[in-house]
Amino acid sequence: MAAKAGSTQSKSNRSRIDRLRSFFSARKADALLVTHLPNIAYLCGFTGSNGILLVEASSATLFTDSRYTFQARDEVHSAATSIVGGPLLSAVSTHLKRRKGRVRLGFSPTHLSVAQKLVLDAALLKKVRWVDAANAVERLRAIKDPHELEHMRAAAALIDTVWESALAAVKPGSSELSVAAEIEYGMKRLGASGASFETIVASGPRSAWAHARATSKLLRKNELVVMDQGAILRHYCSDMTRTVFLGRASSRIRRMYHAVLDSQEAAKAAIRPGIAAGAVDGVARGTLKKYRLDAFFTHSTGHGLGTEVHEMPRLGRGEETVLEKGMVITVEPGVYVEGLGGIRIEDDVVVTHEGCESLTKAKRELIEL
Amino acid sequence: MAAKAGSTQSKSNRSRIDRLRSFFSARKADALLVTHLPNIAYLCGFTGSNGILLVEASSATLFTDSRYTFQARDEVHSAATSIVGGPLLSAVSTHLKRRKGRVRLGFSPTHLSVAQKLVLDAALLKKVRWVDAANAVERLRAIKDPHELEHMRAAAALIDTVWESALAAVKPGSSELSVAAEIEYGMKRLGASGASFETIVASGPRSAWAHARATSKLLRKNELVVMDQGAILRHYCSDMTRTVFLGRASSRIRRMYHAVLDSQEAAKAAIRPGIAAGAVDGVARGTLKKYRLDAFFTHSTGHGLGTEVHEMPRLGRGEETVLEKGMVITVEPGVYVEGLGGIRIEDDVVVTHEGCESLTKAKRELIEL
Repeated sequence: MAAKAGSTQSKSNRSRIDRLRSFFSARKADALLVTHLPNIAYLCGFTGSNGILLVEASSATLFTDSRYTFQARDEVHSAATSIVGGPLLSAVSTHLKRRKGRVRLGFSPTHLSVAQKLVLDAALLKKVRWVDAANAVERLRAIKDPHELEHMRAAAALIDTVWESALAAVKPGSSELSVAAEIEYGMKRLGASGASFETIVASGPRSAWAHARATSKLLRKNELVVMDQGAILRHYCSDMTRTVFLGRASSRIRRMYHAVLDSQEAAKAAIRPGIAAGAVDGVARGTLKKYRLDAFFTHSTGHGLGTEVHEMPRLGRGEETVLEKGMVITVEPGVYVEGLGGIRIEDDVVVTHEGCESLTKAKRELIEL
Repeated sequence: MAAKAGSTQSKSNRSRIDRLRSFFSARKADALLVTHLPNIAYLCGFTGSNGILLVEASSATLFTDSRYTFQARDEVHSAATSIVGGPLLSAVSTHLKRRKGRVRLGFSPTHLSVAQKLVLDAALLKKVRWVDAANAVERLRAIKDPHELEHMRAAAALIDTVWESALAAVKPGSSELSVAAEIEYGMKRLGASGASFETIVASGPRSAWAHARATSKLLRKNELVVMDQGAILRHYCSDMTRTVFLGRASSRIRRMYHAVLDSQEAAKAAIRPGIAAGAVDGVARGTLKKYRLDAFFTHSTGHGLGTEVHEMPRLGRGEETVLEKGMVITVEPGVYVEGLGGIRIEDDVVVTHEGCESLTKAKRELIEL
C-alpha cells in the first residue's frame, strides 16, 4: 500500500513541479529556490526538517543532510537528492556557480531570511539576479486535487469522531489540560501523526481569550467551554471548534450562541467560486452586526487549510483573493466578551462548483452538558 | 499561585531586557527589533502567536493583535502593549517614525525575512540604520537561571516517568504510532502542554533513519526500537532518547549498543565550563572511532535546549562556542546501519561549575523486552 501511494504521489509531485515551471518561466526566472519546508514537501515529497529545493528548467535538486539519506531515497522521486556535509546554502551556491552566465533566481521573500540572502549574495556576487516569485507555490497549494481532498476528508472525519468521544470528559472537575489530553490521545489512537496545533480547551472567563491554551484550570458548572482542535493525518490538517455549556445556558448565552451559528451559516451560504474572500468575511461580520455583537468578533472569519494549518487564502476584512473550486478553508466566526466568555463555531469546508461542502460535520447546535 | 509566578516572572523579564540593553548600547544601537516569538516570550512573557517586541533605551513595546488583548494584559508586565488593527510592521514603523533623528535599529538577520525588511525599508526610508544584533537574545537564553532550571528539571523528570510507563506498550504487534500515542498521552496527563517535537518511535530497519517519524508499522520480535521524546512543561522542553531491543540482542547489536553508551558517557565526562562545544563532539566521535563505528554517526552530538527544542549551543564538529555554567544541552550520539537499524542514547544535561549533571535519568543500559 505504501508503494502504491508513493507512486501516485510522485506523479503528482512531478506535475506540480511542471506547473511551477510554467509560472517561473513566465516571470523570466531560470530557477526557483524553495526554502519553506511545506512547499518542499508539496513539490518533491520530502518531509524532513532540513532541506532546500532548487527547481531548474529541466531538473530539480533537493539539498539535505546525512540524517536524511535513507528517508530522501524513500520519499523523493521527482527531484535528484544531494546529501550535503556543511551548510545547505553553500552547496546551493556551488551548484548555481556551475551554470553558465547569470541566473535569474526566483525566491519567496517571505521564506528567505535576511541572513540567508546575505550568505547567497556573498557567495554568488553578480552571478544571481533575484526575482520575486512571491507565493507561487502557496498559490498552487491553495487548490487541492482529488487525492489531497481525500486526505482532508479523512482528517476532518477523524476530528469529528475524536471530539464526540472527548465530550464524555467535559464535566465539572476535569481540567482543561486533561480534556486536551483525551482529545490528542484520541487523534493518535486513530492514526493521526499529531495535532495540527496545540489543542485549545478554554473554560469560563478564559474562553474569552480567542487563542487561549489549555491550562490546569478545572471546568466548573455554568461555564462556556471552547474546544478548538485539529489532527494531522497523512500530512493533511483538520481544524474544528465547538463550544459547549456546562449546565443550563442563560438566555443571554443562548442568544450569543445563536448569533454565532447564524453568522457561520450565512458565511457558508455565501461561499462559491468567484466570490472574494473579504466578501465572505463581510457576510459573517454583517450577520453578527444584526445582533449588535460584531464588535466582539475580534479575528478574521477563516483561513486556508492543507498541509499547514494556516494557508492561503485568508478570509479577512477586504481580502481580494477570489475563491476557487478545490480551495479548503475554515469558517469560524466567534464572539468574546470579557468576564462572560467566548463562543466560536468552526468548520472546514471545500469550495465546490456551486457552493461549498462541510468536511467537519459534528453537531453545531448548542450542547448543554 | 499563578499571581506569584507571574510576579517572579515579570521581575526576571525586566532584568533580561536590561541585560539586552547593555548589549545593544555597546553595539551603538538605539533600539532592538525582536521578531522571533521565543525571544519575545523570554523578554516580556508574551506567549501568543503574533507579536513583535521593540526594545528602546527606556521603554519596551509589544505589538500584537486584538485576539491577544486579554492574554497580553495577563502575561506582559515588562513592556507596554500596543494592540494593532493592521499589519504589526506598519505599527512598528509608525512608532519609529515618531522618534527624532535617525534610529540605529538592531535586528536579527536570521529572524527577519527579506519581505519584512522590504516593508520596513519602504516605510522608514533613510530613517533607519540597520545594526546586525546577531543572536543577542539567544546568547542570553543559552544560560538558564535557577528558576528556569527548576522548570527544566521538572520537564526532564516528567519524560523519564512517561517513558518508563510507556515501555509496557513496546511489544510485538503494537504499532509505532500507538506507542507514540501512549507517550504523548502520558505527557499531557502529567501536565505537559504537549510534546516538544513529534515523538519518534522507529523500529527495525526504520530505526536507521535518524529522524524517522512514528508510522503504522507494527513492532516485531528481534527489532531495535528507537524512542525519542520530549515534553513541554511550563514552556520548557525536555528531549530524551532510549533504544530497546525486542527479544534477545545479537552480539553485534550488543557491541553497537555498548559503543554508543561508551561514547555518550565519555562526552558527558568531558563537559565542563570552558570546554569548546566542538571538543565535546570530538570526544563522542573519537570514542565511536575506537569501535570503528564513527562513520555511522551521521549527526552532531547535541544541542542546547530550553523553551525551544533546538537552541544555542550546537555540539557539532568544530563548534567554537565555549560551554558555560547554566547551559542545558543534549548529549545524543547514535549509530545508524542501513538494513540493520539504529541506536541512539540521549540525555539532557546542565553544565555545573565543575562538570555536568544529567536531568534525564531513565535507565541507560540495554533493555531487552
